[in-house]
Amino acid sequence: MITLLKSSESNFKESFDALLMRGAMDINNVEGRVKELLNAIKTQGQEAVIAQVARFDNWNPKSFLELKITQEEMECAYSNLDSALKNALQLAYERIYAFHAKQKPKTWLDFEDNGNILGQKVTPVDRAGLYIPGGKAAYPSSLLMNVIPALVAGVKEIVVCTPTPENKPNALLLAAMHLCGIKESYKIGGASAVGALAYGVSGQDGIQKVDVITGPGNIYVATAKKLVFGEVNIDMIAGPSEIGILHESTDKAEGNVEYVAWDLLSQAEHDEMASAILITTNESFAQAVAKQIDRLLKTLPRKEIASKSINERGAIIVTQNLEQSLELMNKIAPEHLEVFVDNPLEILPKIKHAGAIFIGENTPEPIGDYIAGPNHTLPTGGSAKFFSPLSTEHFMKKSSIISFSKQGIMQLGKECGILAHTEGLDAHQNAVSIRLKLF
Amino acid sequence: MITLLKSSESNFKESFDALLMRGAMDINNVEGRVKELLNAIKTQGQEAVIAQVARFDNWNPKSFLELKITQEEMECAYSNLDSALKNALQLAYERIYAFHAKQKPKTWLDFEDNGNILGQKVTPVDRAGLYIPGGKAAYPSSLLMNVIPALVAGVKEIVVCTPTPENKPNALLLAAMHLCGIKESYKIGGASAVGALAYGVSGQDGIQKVDVITGPGNIYVATAKKLVFGEVNIDMIAGPSEIGILHESTDKAEGNVEYVAWDLLSQAEHDEMASAILITTNESFAQAVAKQIDRLLKTLPRKEIASKSINERGAIIVTQNLEQSLELMNKIAPEHLEVFVDNPLEILPKIKHAGAIFIGENTPEPIGDYIAGPNHTLPTGGSAKFFSPLSTEHFMKKSSIISFSKQGIMQLGKECGILAHTEGLDAHQNAVSIRLKLF
Repeated sequence: MITLLKSSESNFKESFDALLMRGAMDINNVEGRVKELLNAIKTQGQEAVIAQVARFDNWNPKSFLELKITQEEMECAYSNLDSALKNALQLAYERIYAFHAKQKPKTWLDFEDNGNILGQKVTPVDRAGLYIPGGKAAYPSSLLMNVIPALVAGVKEIVVCTPTPENKPNALLLAAMHLCGIKESYKIGGASAVGALAYGVSGQDGIQKVDVITGPGNIYVATAKKLVFGEVNIDMIAGPSEIGILHESTDKAEGNVEYVAWDLLSQAEHDEMASAILITTNESFAQAVAKQIDRLLKTLPRKEIASKSINERGAIIVTQNLEQSLELMNKIAPEHLEVFVDNPLEILPKIKHAGAIFIGENTPEPIGDYIAGPNHTLPTGGSAKFFSPLSTEHFMKKSSIISFSKQGIMQLGKECGILAHTEGLDAHQNAVSIRLKLF
Repeated sequence: MITLLKSSESNFKESFDALLMRGAMDINNVEGRVKELLNAIKTQGQEAVIAQVARFDNWNPKSFLELKITQEEMECAYSNLDSALKNALQLAYERIYAFHAKQKPKTWLDFEDNGNILGQKVTPVDRAGLYIPGGKAAYPSSLLMNVIPALVAGVKEIVVCTPTPENKPNALLLAAMHLCGIKESYKIGGASAVGALAYGVSGQDGIQKVDVITGPGNIYVATAKKLVFGEVNIDMIAGPSEIGILHESTDKAEGNVEYVAWDLLSQAEHDEMASAILITTNESFAQAVAKQIDRLLKTLPRKEIASKSINERGAIIVTQNLEQSLELMNKIAPEHLEVFVDNPLEILPKIKHAGAIFIGENTPEPIGDYIAGPNHTLPTGGSAKFFSPLSTEHFMKKSSIISFSKQGIMQLGKECGILAHTEGLDAHQNAVSIRLKLF
C-alpha cells in the first residue's frame, strides 16, 4: 500500500525529508570499477572495448569492426516494422522536431552608436555521442529524444552507442536509427561506451572522440558520464524516474481518481527505484487514489517492479491548502509534475522547480514521453532546481563577439586601463594604452 | 624566445599536437586530497571549515561567525575607493549588466490549433554560490563577471566565498561586493568553499546549500567543482588562460606588430601555464612579433611569469594561407581569439570554436576582461568546442510545459499508446487509454 502522510501530523517533517532523499545515488560504490573500465579504454583502446563487450554483453566480437552496426541492418529493421508503428514513430519524430526547432538559440549582434559591435554567436558542436540503453529495455523513444535535438542543432556527426547483449540488436531501436538517419553506431554499452565516446578509440575502424555525450543509463553510465565531464560536455547526471502530482480539492477533480492512479503507476512501472508522489488538499481523494492504485497494480504485467516502487518510494501527502502543496512540491522539484487544479494558469508562475509540467486532466505524463514534442530526458532527484530538460542547446555552444571601433576604444580604454592596473596586470593595461597612444 | 613553427615543415603535426594538449590538467594528482577536504566538510560541518581555513589561510577563526564578511566592511571598503576607480567599476558594472540582460532567455508558449499548449518556462535558481579568488590575486572584475549574470537572472540569494589569507581581506574585492549589493559572503577559499556551498554547513550562522557554483580558481577549486557536479550545477571546469591570434598578411597589418605582441603578453602574464599562440600567413610579421615580444617582456613587472609562459607554452605558427590558419585555430578552440584580417565578417562564419572573438585592431583582449560587456569567464583548453562563456543562463533553468486539450489527446493518444505498448510499458499505455475511454 502506498504511504499516506498528513502535513498536520507531528512527524511529517521527518517523513517528508526522507522523500527528498529519493534520488540520492551513491556513486562511490561503483566509481572505482568505472574508473578502471575508463582507464583501460583510454590506454588500451580497441582491445579493452572488445574485452568489456565480451564480459558485459556476453558475446565475442572478432574485430572492432564487428561492433559497428551496418546501414543494412538498420534499413532492414525499419522496413520490417508494421505500418501503424512506423506511422507512430514518424508522427513522434515530426512533433519532437518541431518543438526542438522552436528552442534553437540564434546568433545575435548588437550595434552601439559609437560603432562597437557586441554579440553572441551560436554554433553546433562538431560531433555528438548518444548513449541509448539496449537489450530488453531498449527504448526507441529515447533514441528520437536524443538524436532530434542534435539534428536540429546542426551537428554534422552523430554517433550512437547501445549495448547489445548476446549480439542480438533490438530491431525497434535499429529501425528508429534508420528513421533518424544515423550513419554511425556501435554495439557498445555501459561505461565502455562512455569511455569510447569521450576518449575516442584509435586504430582502423576506430571511433573519433566526441564533444558532448547525452543519453540515459544506469548508475555505471551516470558515473562514467560524471567522470568524463570536462573532457566532453554531458547533458546531466540522471537517476530513477519520478512523478509528482499536484491536486486541489474540487468537485470535478473527484472524477480524476483513476487518471491520477494510472499516472502515478506509469512512473512506478519504470523502475523499483522510481518515485510517485501525489500531493492533495483532499483527504478522501487521497484515500480513493490509494485504493485505486492497489487495485490497478494487480493488473500490470510489470506489477512486481511497480509494487516495490509504490510501497517503498511512493507517497500521498494531504496538505492544508494549495499554497502548502506548492511549497512542498517546489522542495521535491520532481522530474515530471502533473497539475490537477481548477485554475492552472494562476499557479503556473508559482511552480519554480520541475523538469516538465503537465497541465490538466487531458495531459497524462506518457503523452510527454512519446509524442507531445518536448524532450523526455529530464532532471531527476531534485536536480530540476538547477538542470534543464535535454534540448537543442545541449548540442550547441556560444562564443561572445566583441568588435570595438576607434571611437569605442578611445571612450572606454582609460577606464579599462585603470581596472587592469588595479589588478596588477600591466601587459593588459599596455595592450589598451598602445591603442590610445599613451606610450 | 617564443617558438616559431611553419606548417610546411615535416615535424609540424607533432609540434602542433603538443600545443593542443596545452590545457590538460591532471586532476588525478589532487583528487584524493580534495575528496578528503570535501568529505570532512560534509560530515563535520563548521568544525572542518574552520580547521581548513586555519590550515590554508593561516589564521584562526574563533567561530564560524567570524568567517562572515560584514556589511560594514564592504561598505567601508567601497567608500575608501578613489573616485576614478569607483567610476571605472561603475561603468564596467553597467556595461556588463546591459550585455547580460540581452542574453536572458524568456519563457515561451506555443498554441496549437487543437487547443494544445507547448512551451518552455525559464526560472532562476533559488540560490547561487560564487567562488572568487582572493588574497594577492584578488580580481574585482571576476566578482562583477559572476555576480551580474546571477542578478540579471533574478537569483534571490547570492553568496560569495573568497580566500582571505591571514584574515586580511582584499579591499577592492570588498568594495566590488558592496557595489554589487552582496549581502552574504564568507572568508573561505579553495575546495573548502566549494564544499561549504555544495553541501551547506549546518548550525548557527551556518551556510545554506546552493543550487549552482560558478567562478574561477586553481586546480583544487576546479577539481572540487567537478566532484560536486550533480549535487549542484557548475559553470565549467576551467584551466589556465589562453589567447589565439589569427593574422592575415596585408600591408596594413604590418603596423600591428606591437598590438599583437602586447595582446599575446596580456595572456602570458596571467600564469606560467597560460598559452599565447599567433597564427599568421606572413613569416616576416611572425619574426617581427617574436622580436617585439622579447623586447617588451623585459619591461613587465610580471616578466618572470610571462617569460615562462611565452617560452614554454607560446607559439607563432606560419601557415600557407588563411584557410589553413582557420583550420588550425578551430582545432585549438582558444579561450580568447583575436582576429586581425582584412575582412573579418567574411571569416566570422568559419570560426567554429572560441570562447570569445575579438575583431579588429581596436579590440585588444583586455577590453573584454573588464569593460566591453560580455563575460570574461570563458572555456579553456579546447573546451570551447562544447562549453559556452559564463552567462545569465547558467543561473536559470528550464521546465517544459505541456497542456493537452480533449481534442489533442483524442488526436494523438492512439499513436502514443502504440509506442508505449511497443516499449512494454502498459501503465503508460493505460494512462492514455483511460482518457480515450478505451477500457
